[in-house]
Order: sequence, then C-alpha cells, then structure tokens
Amino acid sequence: MAGTRFTPEREGELYTAVLGLLREVGYDALTMDAVAARAHTSKATLYRQWGSKAELVVRALRCEKPVFLDEVDTGSLRGDLDAVLEMTDDDRLEQDTALMRGLMQAASASTELHDALISQLINPETDGVDTLLRRAVDRGEVAADNPALGYVPHMMIGALAARLLIENRPVDRAFLRHYVHSVVFPALGV
Amino acid sequence: MAGTRFTPEREGELYTAVLGLLREVGYDALTMDAVAARAHTSKATLYRQWGSKAELVVRALRCEKPVFLDEVDTGSLRGDLDAVLEMTDDDRLEQDTALMRGLMQAASASTELHDALISQLINPETDGVDTLLRRAVDRGEVAADNPALGYVPHMMIGALAARLLIENRPVDRAFLRHYVHSVVFPALGV
Repeated sequence: MAGTRFTPEREGELYTAVLGLLREVGYDALTMDAVAARAHTSKATLYRQWGSKAELVVRALRCEKPVFLDEVDTGSLRGDLDAVLEMTDDDRLEQDTALMRGLMQAASASTELHDALISQLINPETDGVDTLLRRAVDRGEVAADNPALGYVPHMMIGALAARLLIENRPVDRAFLRHYVHSVVFPALGV
Repeated sequence: MAGTRFTPEREGELYTAVLGLLREVGYDALTMDAVAARAHTSKATLYRQWGSKAELVVRALRCEKPVFLDEVDTGSLRGDLDAVLEMTDDDRLEQDTALMRGLMQAASASTELHDALISQLINPETDGVDTLLRRAVDRGEVAADNPALGYVPHMMIGALAARLLIENRPVDRAFLRHYVHSVVFPALGV
C-alpha cells in the first residue's frame, strides 16, 4: 500500500507533517483534513494510500524510528542493552513516552489503533529484543531455559508505566539504565 | 468524612451499590444520581459524605479489598508472595484487572480520580509490598542494598499491563505465579 504512489522523499515529508500535527494536537484531535492541508495533498489520496488515520499515524511513527534493535550487536547482552540506551537522549525519551502514553489511551477507544500500535510498533520492538536475547543464548550468556526470557517486554513496560503513573516522573536514561541493571540483568542471570 | 453519618453496615450497603454500578456501566457513565437511587439515599448526602464521585468510587474499592498485604507473614518472602497469590482466584483477578484498566483510562482524563487511585489504592499496595520486603531484609533473605528492592511495583505493573495490552490475555494466577518466580525472585536474589 504505502509507497506505491509516493517517492520516499515525498513520503518522508508527509510523515513529518503527520508527526508534527500529532505532537501539537494529540491523536484524537488529529484530522486527515489537517494532514492533507499541511502536506499539500488531498484527503482522498491519504485514504487511498494508508486506509485509515490509525495506519497513517503508526506508519509515520515506525518510519521515524532511526534504529532497529536487532542491528545492535556488541558481542554481549549487557553491551547491547547499554548501547540501545545510549542511542537516545532524555528529551527524546520524555517526548516519546508522552506520545506513546497518549496513543495507548486513544487506543483504549479504538481497536484499529490498538492493533496497529501492537503490530507495527510494539511487536517489532519485542522481536528485536528476542533477537538480542537469542544471540545471548547462543553465546552461552543466558541459559536457554531461563524463564525470564519471555518477560523482558513485561519488565520494560512496567518500568515505563510505573515511572509515569506512580512515580509521576518522566522516563530518563539514568532511570532506565538503573532499572535494566537492577531488574533485567539479574532476572536473566547476566 | 466517610463514616461520620453512616453505620458501618449502611456504608457497606452503599459501597456495594457503587461497585455494582461501576461493574455494570464503568466509571465514566456512573452518576451520583444512579448511586443515590440504588442505595436509597440522596445525591446531596453522597456529596456531603464523600465530596466527589472519584473519592466515593475509590473508597468503595478500598473497602472491598479483603486482605492487607502486610498482614501476610509466613516467615519467608517466597512464602509471603505465594500466599498473596493464593488469596485470590482467576475470576476475581480477571474482573479486578479489567476494572483497574478501565479506571486508569478514566484517570487519564481526571486528575482527581488519578490522585485518588494512587493515594488510596496503589500506594497502600506498594506500602504493603515494602513491609514484606523489609521483613525479608531483616531476616537476611534479601541484601539491604539490593537495587531491585524499589522496583517490585514496576515489575508487577509490567506483568499486568503487558499481559492485557500485548498478549491480549486475561491475568490469571498461574501467569502471575510464573512471572513472580521467573522475574521478581531472581531480581531480588531469593
């Protein structure tokens, strides 16, 4: 679907317009009319290419992600996860977690958005984590039958949710690093 | 406030009416008029006693909780957490997590509900967990400087959120037991 009628450059411009609007007004208030106006295209074209607002927003977010986790390969699991944390900064983390929080709230009222978030943003992340973990098992760093291997996404989602909801503080790199070293590494036995 | 004008029995009847309505229609659609009608009292009385819908709902939920975590004291942390899990059943877990999920969604649009949930439902739970953990440290089961001691709520919230949002499956006792044994105990070194 996406990409069949736009050049990559044009698609990039369009996603930039979507993400700008998303950060300004939030998911619920974002309209396809406003995207079309800002990106100098028509609403009909947007629907023809992306099918729905949920799909367009989630594709824009996916496209914006600069790093794919499974490209990180430092030779050790501790090195890999520390390297992943080094790739972002606190401003970006705070913006991204605020955005995801808003999207998950909007998703509670939209099965379409929920499914798009899971399939195009969350599942690729958990697949990337699985790749890093599988390499660690292959290197003998983590036991193949370690029962925590399937729970790394649970641990990380808990870090983000509890930080925002209970601690009422922004997610930053120092917090994530401390959490990964205090919880994730010991659970995996590395 | 609460309890100064009602007998404990009458207050219990009123909370039962609130929780029945909450489970039937959800937080957003629950009205003080409907509570007053079902509990055979007046809306003015409800506001005089509880101040707001958020406060009334959260107090009803708090009152319904039959067990306080810090009353569990089996002599070991593993025994304590297993005992806590034994006190519920799968139907109850599924209902309670669905209810909390709905309340957290409603809380994203209401600071008053958010603050009441944190102060009257979440903080007492995390305080109860801290009591169990402090006893485990005093017994020498967990090192006093174990950095995971402050993250047990994060780990547990992650289990619930990831189970509901990513796995799209209900929280049940077997899952929680496996998670606690796979993640929480290893992180704490017990």
